[in-house]
Amino acid sequence: MAAPGENLKVNGERLWDSLMEMAKIGPGVAGGNNRQTLTDADGEGRALFQTWCEAAGLSMGVDEMGTMFARREGTDPQALPVCVGSHLDTQPTGGKYDGVLGVLAGLEIIRTLNDLDIKTRHPIVVTNWTNEEGTRFAPAMLASGVFAGVLDRDWAYGRVDAEGKRFGDELERIGWKGDEQVGARKMHAFFELHIEQGPILEAEGKDIGVVTHGQGLRWIECTVTGKGQHTGSTPMYMRRNAGRALARVTELVHEIALQHQPNAVGAIGHIDVYPNSRNIIPEKVVFTVDFRSHVLETLEAMVEELNDTAPGLCADVGVKFSSEVVGFFDPPAFDETLVGRVRDAAERLGYSHMDIVSGAGHDACWVNRVYPTTMVMCPCKDGLSHNEAEEITPDWATAGADVLMHAVVETAEIVE
Amino acid sequence: MAAPGENLKVNGERLWDSLMEMAKIGPGVAGGNNRQTLTDADGEGRALFQTWCEAAGLSMGVDEMGTMFARREGTDPQALPVCVGSHLDTQPTGGKYDGVLGVLAGLEIIRTLNDLDIKTRHPIVVTNWTNEEGTRFAPAMLASGVFAGVLDRDWAYGRVDAEGKRFGDELERIGWKGDEQVGARKMHAFFELHIEQGPILEAEGKDIGVVTHGQGLRWIECTVTGKGQHTGSTPMYMRRNAGRALARVTELVHEIALQHQPNAVGAIGHIDVYPNSRNIIPEKVVFTVDFRSHVLETLEAMVEELNDTAPGLCADVGVKFSSEVVGFFDPPAFDETLVGRVRDAAERLGYSHMDIVSGAGHDACWVNRVYPTTMVMCPCKDGLSHNEAEEITPDWATAGADVLMHAVVETAEIVE
Repeated sequence: MAAPGENLKVNGERLWDSLMEMAKIGPGVAGGNNRQTLTDADGEGRALFQTWCEAAGLSMGVDEMGTMFARREGTDPQALPVCVGSHLDTQPTGGKYDGVLGVLAGLEIIRTLNDLDIKTRHPIVVTNWTNEEGTRFAPAMLASGVFAGVLDRDWAYGRVDAEGKRFGDELERIGWKGDEQVGARKMHAFFELHIEQGPILEAEGKDIGVVTHGQGLRWIECTVTGKGQHTGSTPMYMRRNAGRALARVTELVHEIALQHQPNAVGAIGHIDVYPNSRNIIPEKVVFTVDFRSHVLETLEAMVEELNDTAPGLCADVGVKFSSEVVGFFDPPAFDETLVGRVRDAAERLGYSHMDIVSGAGHDACWVNRVYPTTMVMCPCKDGLSHNEAEEITPDWATAGADVLMHAVVETAEIVE
Repeated sequence: MAAPGENLKVNGERLWDSLMEMAKIGPGVAGGNNRQTLTDADGEGRALFQTWCEAAGLSMGVDEMGTMFARREGTDPQALPVCVGSHLDTQPTGGKYDGVLGVLAGLEIIRTLNDLDIKTRHPIVVTNWTNEEGTRFAPAMLASGVFAGVLDRDWAYGRVDAEGKRFGDELERIGWKGDEQVGARKMHAFFELHIEQGPILEAEGKDIGVVTHGQGLRWIECTVTGKGQHTGSTPMYMRRNAGRALARVTELVHEIALQHQPNAVGAIGHIDVYPNSRNIIPEKVVFTVDFRSHVLETLEAMVEELNDTAPGLCADVGVKFSSEVVGFFDPPAFDETLVGRVRDAAERLGYSHMDIVSGAGHDACWVNRVYPTTMVMCPCKDGLSHNEAEEITPDWATAGADVLMHAVVETAEIVE
């Protein structure tokens, strides 16, 4: 397959304009977006995207999880499509680019190919995966999870939000429950462009992250139980302070991750203290340890070390420790051929690049289980994401879309 | 002044029955009470208490903060009253004895003196201080604070609850805003019986706590600020984890308190983590350090050590530390003469006793600023309080009331 010539470039301005147009739908309160899955704003965003797809001559299909597939025909009716996309749903206080860049870059590829009247052997399909964020309906990457056969469709329909509304009902309510069986759309390959959501590319001065793996993840929900007593009237020697146990496990988690460098990270992000009163020694603390590595053995070792060591540390301060794995994702290794195409494209186009591991979960991580998949990353300012101040430069968006296009088009095979 | 004879004893059964009757008003959900200040239930409780006072021949006065004063005349019209009481308002998930014991024990003293037709030179006044708990309207000990001239009445009127209702409005709504100027009722002495709300008396097997001091308190609200980054995509060396700063200050607080034994306690009871998301490294943690000692120099030293040491500990993990004192109470030393009378009464009555410092704040702590004051404590099971499972034995209630009565009556001077 011939690689596309260097002069095949996206229209960066058109891509940026589309990003800004989409950002107007479901705006946030500080410059970003609140376009959560299956809200009316989500419905509006989908409708806008559909309009653009129709204008680009794509045929749209929607599956039973609401995932959108916008198809540009190839010359070979037998060839499976090369898919490219991400997600249009956002965090409650999300940025304008997280997920959206990947979908609209896919559309920009189509528009560019149309402009230049380029044909490919394989069809190209732009995808918008439903509920990647998982904030309104847990868990994240819900539709791609069902697509990959990891999650059950009816189980997904039954997921409820904080107000008790069901995913399945809300999908019907906004009118985006499609009729295609989930998973019916087979793929030749899947590509996802995404902002890094981390600080490495910017710190290293690289335009392109060539993503080789996703992180594996373990969320371990820990409960430390002591005794909730009055802060004033309980002598120090009689205390069983669950807050001290939290402190010890916090340091333990940090140490465990440091022991496994450079392939590991660990921290506690979510903490609930009970009863959380100024004059009551914490009775109980429930917190979630977030361990990640793209090396499976490392990931499993960290969980084991936590469960081996934490009980004793807590017992030393009179507190009981128990834990339960509540999040579980083995590290995906992306398709080496596709990864190579991304790397070569960045090289050929003259963009600075480095290999990188995706720190966050993405739809590509699930799709990788069923079809050859890879990702492309672009930097984001200060590594900030899941925050309305999330920002990228138009140059970064353009570079990412160029590299994405080249890898997609090489895989879809230009027909001269 | 002759001490009362040993045969002067309260009617323990009558005291217990009254406790159980009052407990029916504003019941909780687990055997205790939710009779928060200025709720309708509080109004009902006050009305019941008033009925009992009237039946005991007492004349009732109510001040502008709703504090109730139920007076038994003395033989000397010039003599200032000996006051005895506590508070009838409870925590949202409170016990049946916290505060209530002190008020109803005061009433039981009156009933016993009536039974035996005992006259005293000084009047005896049973008090029910409004809003001791401070849960609905902060701060605690609100009415006694105004009485002692520490808090301003109109400021107290303006305190709002979680629904924005004003203290002053609610006091009028339940019809308990009295016409007596706050502080107009001068006292010869004030006595308060209270459950220990701590584990020491029960652990030491003592029936009576002879309270010599209250704890001084400093609440230091600390803010540690790092950077809220994605747990997956941020390498360990680039993190500024406010959760690790919390862990370090937690241990520092514990160490500081241990350095000042046996006269000090310290812990962190209230913690808020931001943004408190499983996949985001804590950006900021706001928590309150609770330091207490009945020795002022110790208390001040602990705050200084925290503010000297914490910034460096936090800076070592890339986190900024700042703090603000949000709670401030210097340790009250109770009146030595009155303390001696309590101790002698316990001795004379044959109750096991030990000197103790009140770990929690009480109305007596404010009243001590203006009149000779002391407290009597009885054990509580497992040191548990501020909890519907709070429990004492009838024997403990009786012993506390006996000692209270002897000290009160000795101070009020029996007239033969």
